[in-house]
Amino acid sequence: MQIAMVGLGRMGANMVRRLLGDGHACVVYDLDAQARDALVQAGATGAASLEELVARLAPPRVLWLMLPAAAIDAALASIAPLLAPGDTIVDGGNTHYRDDLRRAAGLTERGLHFVDVGTSGGVHGLGSGYCLMVGGDPGVVHRLEPLFASLAPPFGSVARGPQRSGEPVGAERGFLHCGPCGAGHFVKMVHNGIEYGLMAAYAEGFNLLRSAGTVTGKPVADAETAPNAHADAPRYAFDLAEIAELWRRGSVVRSWLLDLTADALRTEPDLASLRGHVADSGEGRWMLQAAIDDGVPAPVLATALFGRFASRDADDFANRVLSAMRREFGGHLERAAASEG
Amino acid sequence: MQIAMVGLGRMGANMVRRLLGDGHACVVYDLDAQARDALVQAGATGAASLEELVARLAPPRVLWLMLPAAAIDAALASIAPLLAPGDTIVDGGNTHYRDDLRRAAGLTERGLHFVDVGTSGGVHGLGSGYCLMVGGDPGVVHRLEPLFASLAPPFGSVARGPQRSGEPVGAERGFLHCGPCGAGHFVKMVHNGIEYGLMAAYAEGFNLLRSAGTVTGKPVADAETAPNAHADAPRYAFDLAEIAELWRRGSVVRSWLLDLTADALRTEPDLASLRGHVADSGEGRWMLQAAIDDGVPAPVLATALFGRFASRDADDFANRVLSAMRREFGGHLERAAASEG
Amino acid sequence: MQIAMVGLGRMGANMVRRLLGDGHACVVYDLDAQARDALVQAGATGAASLEELVARLAPPRVLWLMLPAAAIDAALASIAPLLAPGDTIVDGGNTHYRDDLRRAAGLTERGLHFVDVGTSGGVHGLGSGYCLMVGGDPGVVHRLEPLFASLAPPFGSVARGPQRSGEPVGAERGFLHCGPCGAGHFVKMVHNGIEYGLMAAYAEGFNLLRSAGTVTGKPVADAETAPNAHADAPRYAFDLAEIAELWRRGSVVRSWLLDLTADALRTEPDLASLRGHVADSGEGRWMLQAAIDDGVPAPVLATALFGRFASRDADDFANRVLSAMRREFGGHLERAAASEG
Amino acid sequence: MQIAMVGLGRMGANMVRRLLGDGHACVVYDLDAQARDALVQAGATGAASLEELVARLAPPRVLWLMLPAAAIDAALASIAPLLAPGDTIVDGGNTHYRDDLRRAAGLTERGLHFVDVGTSGGVHGLGSGYCLMVGGDPGVVHRLEPLFASLAPPFGSVARGPQRSGEPVGAERGFLHCGPCGAGHFVKMVHNGIEYGLMAAYAEGFNLLRSAGTVTGKPVADAETAPNAHADAPRYAFDLAEIAELWRRGSVVRSWLLDLTADALRTEPDLASLRGHVADSGEGRWMLQAAIDDGVPAPVLATALFGRFASRDADDFANRVLSAMRREFGGHLERAAASEG
Repeated sequence: MQIAMVGLGRMGANMVRRLLGDGHACVVYDLDAQARDALVQAGATGAASLEELVARLAPPRVLWLMLPAAAIDAALASIAPLLAPGDTIVDGGNTHYRDDLRRAAGLTERGLHFVDVGTSGGVHGLGSGYCLMVGGDPGVVHRLEPLFASLAPPFGSVARGPQRSGEPVGAERGFLHCGPCGAGHFVKMVHNGIEYGLMAAYAEGFNLLRSAGTVTGKPVADAETAPNAHADAPRYAFDLAEIAELWRRGSVVRSWLLDLTADALRTEPDLASLRGHVADSGEGRWMLQAAIDDGVPAPVLATALFGRFASRDADDFANRVLSAMRREFGGHLERAAASEG
Repeated sequence: MQIAMVGLGRMGANMVRRLLGDGHACVVYDLDAQARDALVQAGATGAASLEELVARLAPPRVLWLMLPAAAIDAALASIAPLLAPGDTIVDGGNTHYRDDLRRAAGLTERGLHFVDVGTSGGVHGLGSGYCLMVGGDPGVVHRLEPLFASLAPPFGSVARGPQRSGEPVGAERGFLHCGPCGAGHFVKMVHNGIEYGLMAAYAEGFNLLRSAGTVTGKPVADAETAPNAHADAPRYAFDLAEIAELWRRGSVVRSWLLDLTADALRTEPDLASLRGHVADSGEGRWMLQAAIDDGVPAPVLATALFGRFASRDADDFANRVLSAMRREFGGHLERAAASEG
Repeated sequence: MQIAMVGLGRMGANMVRRLLGDGHACVVYDLDAQARDALVQAGATGAASLEELVARLAPPRVLWLMLPAAAIDAALASIAPLLAPGDTIVDGGNTHYRDDLRRAAGLTERGLHFVDVGTSGGVHGLGSGYCLMVGGDPGVVHRLEPLFASLAPPFGSVARGPQRSGEPVGAERGFLHCGPCGAGHFVKMVHNGIEYGLMAAYAEGFNLLRSAGTVTGKPVADAETAPNAHADAPRYAFDLAEIAELWRRGSVVRSWLLDLTADALRTEPDLASLRGHVADSGEGRWMLQAAIDDGVPAPVLATALFGRFASRDADDFANRVLSAMRREFGGHLERAAASEG
Repeated sequence: MQIAMVGLGRMGANMVRRLLGDGHACVVYDLDAQARDALVQAGATGAASLEELVARLAPPRVLWLMLPAAAIDAALASIAPLLAPGDTIVDGGNTHYRDDLRRAAGLTERGLHFVDVGTSGGVHGLGSGYCLMVGGDPGVVHRLEPLFASLAPPFGSVARGPQRSGEPVGAERGFLHCGPCGAGHFVKMVHNGIEYGLMAAYAEGFNLLRSAGTVTGKPVADAETAPNAHADAPRYAFDLAEIAELWRRGSVVRSWLLDLTADALRTEPDLASLRGHVADSGEGRWMLQAAIDDGVPAPVLATALFGRFASRDADDFANRVLSAMRREFGGHLERAAASEG
């Protein structure tokens, strides 16, 4: 079917390629003409303006936005007036589900439909397919299923669960209508919050494995330093890349994130080209807020998210307060950097 | 090659079956005669006593122990005197790596070899193969490779990493010589610690998804209750089993643990048959202690482990102390159970 | 000076008593006539309606609200139309600072002043004085200083810091103009967030002390139970009330919360009358959200807050998911309650 | 009464001064002759060797060790052979309680008594008195009470709890016999673990207050950055020293640690002379291990301790693993330092 894609970054461009590959007609737009032209070469129809984009679509139109969360309101303000009742806007980016509700209300007044789609898969989605979490009115969602089916991983790409049989239905098709407006982005938000925790669990494990080969246990007999309870602990020189590769095979912790980690460690065992200032793009914060709002605990996510904040030194003043307290009550002076254990 | 298996519980019995299937000669022993007889039916040679077990093995012998960590010392005390120099004992259970070092020292005095093997795979290892993390002297480990190869997942069972090519070596064979004595159990310990974190991340996410459909947001206007910042938040009735199934396909959080979770939720969507008193079998505690000893943070593991302790009400008195403080400083009385939000 | 108090719960009533004791003229209002009459007996002027309350005040009026956060908007809607330009409304409750900003904007349009006051001290404030964190326009705040001075602890009640001398100024007076609108409630929010962490730290320590005398270390030799690394650890029968009392004297952890804890444990050593379902009244959630918004870590607060959520069983489904996973991958069955360690 | 002090660092020297001030006869020894001479000037008897120290004491002797935990075994090996049955050794340092048990067993074989004393109070103990947590045989502990009484804070120095009356007994004397051997250090260990949590709670709060005035909320519209949910949040320029001073007066979070923090912030508001590499001296680790051994949660302590580890960059490799994963799945590149938000 025909679809317009607005926003041709990493995600949007690859999704267009996947849709083209499955025979859909794609009209594409981006402020960056080069991004657009690359997809025109691949078979898409380019539009130099939103007006042109809309003009090239046969009603009822479907426009899929793949934009940063902070750019959606402006995009809708430009696009909505160009559309006609019955047209559908899909927000496939990482949007807060409460923004969906607000925006859907505005679009409904114009007779427009709104569908929120949480999209997972990253740069590998082009080849493997995207995991699509969909929210919106059932009828509108149903009409878009050909698009979802093309974007999603094919049925046979994952081993079927032992409780499943017969014709693949529901989630087995690689996309899921999760509920009314906002449900798709809510599920994607939780997905990403889980992702933060999974990543932190692996990172912590590899950090300990690495430490086991590098931290030396010489006990220091002063009152400022924790005595090493196991100064005689064996030191191992673990090959982290090989261990990651091993765990991919038959272990309880095997996962796609581990596959990626194994590749990264194989390429650069000490990851020395990275600084370890870890960004966060919002969904972890939103899930934490949602947990707070509902009064349910999310301690793994909080741990992972605050670890990222701290990786960017946002805990710096807190640590200085701690050093100040230690000096005040115990006369403890901070060690010079050189002698630090 | 010939091998003795001591301990025929879930793990030991299945490993014997896998070894038999690959043509190895297995002599088996367990206090439980029924467990032994079942394997004799499957082709193993049974032994009614440790003496008989040893007598049925041709030197240099290989005895593989699959026993609870707390039973190893007693087993070694019975077995070691029966063996001859050059024989090898493998501890394939969940043993603390520092116990390996102590025990290996004792066995070395008798001329015996010791190999520690961390074994992952659970009840699914029989069919899929076990992930084996091996520690010990290179020569001794090398001699056991035919056993490891039969127990491990076959090479083709996992998609090969993009950085790998040529003849499969090292971890791609499904087992890995991780380092000297204790290295296998150290890596398994970290593996299990990561597992705790991964599990907790998923559990937390599904808990929030479930809450989104059940927690109602009616604000209460008293000074004892957190005002619900988003009392107007939409309530969703998520189908957790379908969402788990969806995430298996193309998402960043896909993993084997998620596969299992999807099955469990499909079978029993509300998991009502479970009480949620979550056991821990030691490795998580050990990894936390190792992290403390090395002075490296393990906050995700700590969060996951303490969550399990709390699931067994080990935080009960702490919570009563909190209620007592609130009563003392603010006159806050605990709510009766019925009216609690 | 003359002041009206709206809301005569625990906090409001005690504050009126303290103001009366220092010679201020208090006009009081509450939906609960009994609460009002009790203060009339103590010297306050009662008002049967908001209209009467306003009528009894000489302009420029000062009305101080001590109401639950969820009741403020309704109260302002009733009161504001009764007032005249130049009058001042003080919100002394636990309000979100962003609500202050919104409300102040509305009141400013009517020519009314708004001051936010975070108030700490609980039921003990009547005798010891209240700690007042004030936000608002400097001129308006300045005019209220006689009230703040009467409510605050007297200068001599706390040992003076070694860096302080001369006439007491600023915070040494027991109240502080923290900044523009919302600053008072922001500081109070952080105050309460710290309080959550302090309380949790004590609770955790007393829980461990209690456990040291009650958890027995018998090792269990099965694969479901963590082996007790220190099964031979000494068991102590600590007297928690005495330890709390001891720590009040010269220790690094001495504090007012510890004073209260010592009293509570002295009265009821096992706190058996409490259920340990710990409420939270919002400020902890708000501080966590503020930390998320600013991208700064608040792991102690998150730990404390989520512990409270879990004390109310909000982690129940998460724990069942964990038990389900353990059953799926390892065949681990939950123990029956009776045999649980 | 007569006492020998071995170890004249910050703590030992001040304790001698306090004992001298109360009329006790102190014989002192330290490897550092200057430390010894300073106390001789103050009225103590100096000893140039352990032999001389023992010779100058009238049996039954009392020797109090104030040494780093890692130096105790060597000290006991030198001292014990010089003593006679009936003599008592006190370990007043920060020793692991399990080491007490091991050492007491060895000393008992020689007919020597052993008492463990957890000592809190830091550099302020000289003036205010020390909080003493005592473990050992009741008879031996009883004989030392005159020393404890002189070291402890005087009865009147703390407001008496409302549940207490009559002659001060037990903990009201400022020292407490907590239980048999090791009990004193166990209680001190928990005390210090609580201290870690309290400190972290304050540090986190002041960090957020500071951030509220410095983090700017400009939203960035790219996919790498969390959108600032409250970009319009008011920015406050809080005076942290004044807020700390304020909270000392009537607030729920008042404490001795807050007193110290207020002083430190008054002296140096931005704490710029500190690096924020926070040391830990062992007790926090021990309490965490004790909690793990008992299967009770200690999440606040874990959070605080791991925060200290991270302040010393022990999480560095973990963070690089996270950045590597983000690059692998999403093509996310780390930002250059300059442009980081």
